[in-house]
Amino acid sequence: MKVDGQAYRSLWWDAGKGALQIIDQRWLPHDFRVQQLDSLEDYATAIVEMRVRGAPLIGATAAYGVALAMAQDPSDASLDRCWSYLHETRPTAINLRWALDRCRGALRGLAPEARAGAALELAHAVADEDVEINRAIGRHGLQLIRDIAARKPEGEPVRLLTHCNAGWLATVDYGTATSPIYQAHDAGLALHVWVDETRPRNQGALTAWELGSHGVPHSYVTDNAGGHLMQHGQVDLVIVGTDRTTRNGDVCNKIGTYLKALAARDNGVPFYVALPSPTIDWTVADGVSEIPIEERGGFEVSHVQGVDEAGRIGTLRVAPEGSAVGNPAFDVTPSRLVTGLITERGVCAATPEGLAGLFPDMVAAAE
Amino acid sequence: MKVDGQAYRSLWWDAGKGALQIIDQRWLPHDFRVQQLDSLEDYATAIVEMRVRGAPLIGATAAYGVALAMAQDPSDASLDRCWSYLHETRPTAINLRWALDRCRGALRGLAPEARAGAALELAHAVADEDVEINRAIGRHGLQLIRDIAARKPEGEPVRLLTHCNAGWLATVDYGTATSPIYQAHDAGLALHVWVDETRPRNQGALTAWELGSHGVPHSYVTDNAGGHLMQHGQVDLVIVGTDRTTRNGDVCNKIGTYLKALAARDNGVPFYVALPSPTIDWTVADGVSEIPIEERGGFEVSHVQGVDEAGRIGTLRVAPEGSAVGNPAFDVTPSRLVTGLITERGVCAATPEGLAGLFPDMVAAAE
Repeated sequence: MKVDGQAYRSLWWDAGKGALQIIDQRWLPHDFRVQQLDSLEDYATAIVEMRVRGAPLIGATAAYGVALAMAQDPSDASLDRCWSYLHETRPTAINLRWALDRCRGALRGLAPEARAGAALELAHAVADEDVEINRAIGRHGLQLIRDIAARKPEGEPVRLLTHCNAGWLATVDYGTATSPIYQAHDAGLALHVWVDETRPRNQGALTAWELGSHGVPHSYVTDNAGGHLMQHGQVDLVIVGTDRTTRNGDVCNKIGTYLKALAARDNGVPFYVALPSPTIDWTVADGVSEIPIEERGGFEVSHVQGVDEAGRIGTLRVAPEGSAVGNPAFDVTPSRLVTGLITERGVCAATPEGLAGLFPDMVAAAE
Repeated sequence: MKVDGQAYRSLWWDAGKGALQIIDQRWLPHDFRVQQLDSLEDYATAIVEMRVRGAPLIGATAAYGVALAMAQDPSDASLDRCWSYLHETRPTAINLRWALDRCRGALRGLAPEARAGAALELAHAVADEDVEINRAIGRHGLQLIRDIAARKPEGEPVRLLTHCNAGWLATVDYGTATSPIYQAHDAGLALHVWVDETRPRNQGALTAWELGSHGVPHSYVTDNAGGHLMQHGQVDLVIVGTDRTTRNGDVCNKIGTYLKALAARDNGVPFYVALPSPTIDWTVADGVSEIPIEERGGFEVSHVQGVDEAGRIGTLRVAPEGSAVGNPAFDVTPSRLVTGLITERGVCAATPEGLAGLFPDMVAAAE
């Protein structure tokens, strides 16, 4: 998507320099810094320190990391070493492991001298496939936005609400929840996006920065505001992303998503979840009882990062010294509150039948 | 309530110094500063700059302001000047006007030479009455907590959740939503309080500071966390305050309250609202359609106040530069989501009949 009129992906290969370029997201939305990754250590640091974040983006970054390792030493030992080294950076990230497995599996069958070139092609493919999946999600979601726009008075914007950052920064491009938004904007539809701040980590600031950089009208609001906005007819559609979707259609996403789903139901606002099929966990049925919710460190809650008047990025403590802090990172929105799932293969009901109808091959593979 | 083992009110008259002492709440929870108000300008500044905040506390502060004015010049002109000067500090604060009217009405009938003494007695009465109302709210709310405790295994704490600061800092003492909590704690009941941060102004930090200072176990959580906590049986009871209650039992309170009421209903958690009867607006029936919601300045949302490692209190911008900001300050929780109202006269259903049953005199006066 665009930044100051120029099209960007969240990572890109610079053929001239022979190196990957990333956006160091730690400083966003306050500073836009591009970094070149020159060593495997650079790749690991970028993932560990969340300079790159979001499951699809981490997977693509790791694929380029394998390409770098193969260019330096294409041996089997190097391939295994690289797999282990990068896997350790975020051992619970399913997408990271998936990308590393895919690369190692494909490269092992090749002669060492063919591996460097093939690994780079493979990394490009991983990145491009993510873009294509998200583009398809956006195409299907765009139709939902068009349908709402068609029922509104001429010129009145479709008002969307989103939570967290399921944006292009969390993927290679387009994002998931934001892909329908970007495509609707680029198609000339009038939009206004309410962006939830999304405490504790304020990823809403990333979404607001993305939307502002691409020129999409939006307002940054606290996580508390959405219910009131829906009560007063200010939201036509909610679209959020998801970290994990059960085969029943329950949605595990950033903490607070469930509250917005409740408000949407109470006010008759459609609540959609955008997801690439790799986030469907076919082994889990009931999200509330089966998905363990990560309790993260209290610092994220007790402290807030921002920028001071002089432009310096810093951190302040907002909680009282000595107060205990709770920090559940995700919650589960039961499928009964979800109007529909927007996937790369189309929109379906948040039910076992809905998902099985779009993904019979995956259901079969999981059985 | 207690701070470091010592009992405090949020304001108190120092007879030796002949002056009012307040807690300058701008620096809480990071710094506990007491200030003496020596001039009418000091009083006005304290109210305008929100060094004192919360409807009951503002009213009591204004009453002491009138006492100061009468000590300096007990003439009719001085009384009217003082009324206008203090009323201007927050012209929409109903409680401020109520306190000023009450003082002027009572003092005008007295000879000037009797006014200084009478005004000080009146200010003490305004403050003490607030304390008594809140103590009564707490007594009624305590019974709800006792009932829950009686159904739990021995030693397991009653887990409450509250939003914003309806604490002793917003009143003269006890608070409204917190009064049952303090009384339950002082009665030896085991408690754990989830304190919503309450963006944008983070008044949850005041509540957490209050609870910590009084020794009540609690955790500071983001506004997003409550739904998840309720889904997993971690909340036995929600108690919040209110800025305005309609005669139907709709509750206008800090933005985000409605989302917690929805989560409480979805999970079968009792949702109570603590309120002194002056916050009942007998002229309003339907809160959602009739109460205009104040849209406050964006700075509260785009910026956050906190303390740095060196103990300096400062402000950082968290929203992207250039993003629009929405800041509705309150929302309305429809009475259908409210389990009951805890008033100084007892607990009632959030219905016209429930309120009229406890306050037949006020219903009659409003008709």
